[in-house]
Amino acid sequence: MEAVTIYPVEGIPEVRPGDDLAKLIAGAVEAAGLEVQDGDVLVVTHKIVSKAEGRIAKIPPGDDDAKLQIVMGETARVVRQRGGLLIAETKHGFVCANAGVDSSNVEEGTVTLLPVDPDRSARGLRKQIKRLTGASVAVVITDTWGRAWRIGQTNFAIGVAGMLALNDHRGKPDHFGRIMSVTSIAIADEIASAAELVMGKSERIPVALIRGLQYPEGKGRARSLVRDPQSDLFR
Amino acid sequence: MEAVTIYPVEGIPEVRPGDDLAKLIAGAVEAAGLEVQDGDVLVVTHKIVSKAEGRIAKIPPGDDDAKLQIVMGETARVVRQRGGLLIAETKHGFVCANAGVDSSNVEEGTVTLLPVDPDRSARGLRKQIKRLTGASVAVVITDTWGRAWRIGQTNFAIGVAGMLALNDHRGKPDHFGRIMSVTSIAIADEIASAAELVMGKSERIPVALIRGLQYPEGKGRARSLVRDPQSDLFR
Repeated sequence: MEAVTIYPVEGIPEVRPGDDLAKLIAGAVEAAGLEVQDGDVLVVTHKIVSKAEGRIAKIPPGDDDAKLQIVMGETARVVRQRGGLLIAETKHGFVCANAGVDSSNVEEGTVTLLPVDPDRSARGLRKQIKRLTGASVAVVITDTWGRAWRIGQTNFAIGVAGMLALNDHRGKPDHFGRIMSVTSIAIADEIASAAELVMGKSERIPVALIRGLQYPEGKGRARSLVRDPQSDLFR
Repeated sequence: MEAVTIYPVEGIPEVRPGDDLAKLIAGAVEAAGLEVQDGDVLVVTHKIVSKAEGRIAKIPPGDDDAKLQIVMGETARVVRQRGGLLIAETKHGFVCANAGVDSSNVEEGTVTLLPVDPDRSARGLRKQIKRLTGASVAVVITDTWGRAWRIGQTNFAIGVAGMLALNDHRGKPDHFGRIMSVTSIAIADEIASAAELVMGKSERIPVALIRGLQYPEGKGRARSLVRDPQSDLFR
C-alpha cells in the first residue's frame, strides 16, 4: 500500500448559478501548484455543485414555515421529528436532517437544496475535468450529516463517478486464509470523511484532491450506498 | 490548511496476549522509514489492541450457541435482531453488530472482544509511544461497523487519546459571517475512516500514521461520541 495524500484546494471563488464548476476547480487545483493526474480523486462539497446548478431557494429570514415547505418538497418520507429537528429521507433515498436543505455558507435569505441527481453531477464533473486537463479522475460529491447513535457529524458521499462506491471484500480470504463473511467497505463515504479533514467547515475549502489511493474502478454511484427498505432495520 | 498524509504501517507481526503493542508499533513505524513526530496521529485497529490485552475467547468452530453467549456477555442492550444478525449496544455504549465480537483475522476457534476500556487503551499507547520515541501523538483506536440506512461498513473511533473526538464549530461564523447552528464534526470518526483507506481488510496493515492534520488538542475520549438516550431518536 502506498501513502495517501489529501490536498486542500483553496481559492475557489463564490460559485453562482450557471458557473462552469469544472473549470473553477481545475483552475484552483492548478493555482495550488498541483496538476490533476490520472487516478486522483476530486472530492467536492455538494454546496458548490448545488449553487452552480441553481439549486437555491429564497426564504425570508426567520420564516420557518417557508423553510419547512421547502424541506417537505425535498422529502420522500419523514423518518423522525422532534421539536425543530426533522430527519427526512430525500427523494434520492438519503436520510439526513431537513432533507439536505441548508442555510449555512449561503447568502442571507437563501438556502441550498441537494443536487437533483448528484451521481449525474459527479459524472458531469468527471467528464469536464477530463476534457480540461486530460486526466481521468474519480469524483465524490459530499454532504455533512449526523448519524444514528453517535454525536457529531461526518461527511458522506452523495454523488460518485469514475469508481465504485463500495469496496467489496466478500469472498476474499482474511490473513488466516478464512473467507470473510460480511465486509463490504463504503469507500466513497470514507473518502468523503477523509476529505473533510482538510476542508474545515467555516473556511473556503470546498474541494480536496486525494492522491495515491487505490480505489475500486468501475461505473459506481452513491445511490448504491442507499439501503433498500427490506434490509433496513432502522426505518 | 496543509496537506494531510496517511501512511500505512506494515510489518507488525501477529500480536499475542501480553505483547508490548507500543513497542511493536514504534518499531514498525521506524522500519517503514518514518519517524514518529509530535502531532502525528497513530490509528490502530482495535483487533491488535484486543489481542495484546488478551480479549480473546475460544469458540468451538461452528458452535453458534457458544458465540451467542459470548456476544450476550458483551451486550448491554439488544438494539435489533433479525435472523442471524444481532445489532447490540455494548457496555461502552457503542452500537454495532454482535457487540463487537468478531471472528475475522483471528485464529480458527477464537474470537476477539472489544477492549474493556478503549479510551484507556489509547491513553496507554500514547504514553508508551511518548516514552519510546519522545513524540507526543494522538491515538485513535478503531473498529469497522455497518450503519443505519446505508450499505457498507466504515471505520469508527472506539478509543481516543491526545486529542478531542469532536471538533466543535458551534458558535463560529460561516464564511458569510453568520453563526453556524449545528456543526460539531466527529473528527475522530473521520480519522478512523481516513486510515481505513490504507489499511485494507485482508492485509496485515493494522496501523496507519497520519501526518499534517490540525486536530483539536485536549483530553478527549471516544466515549463522548456516544449519544445519550434522551437525544437518541433511533433507540
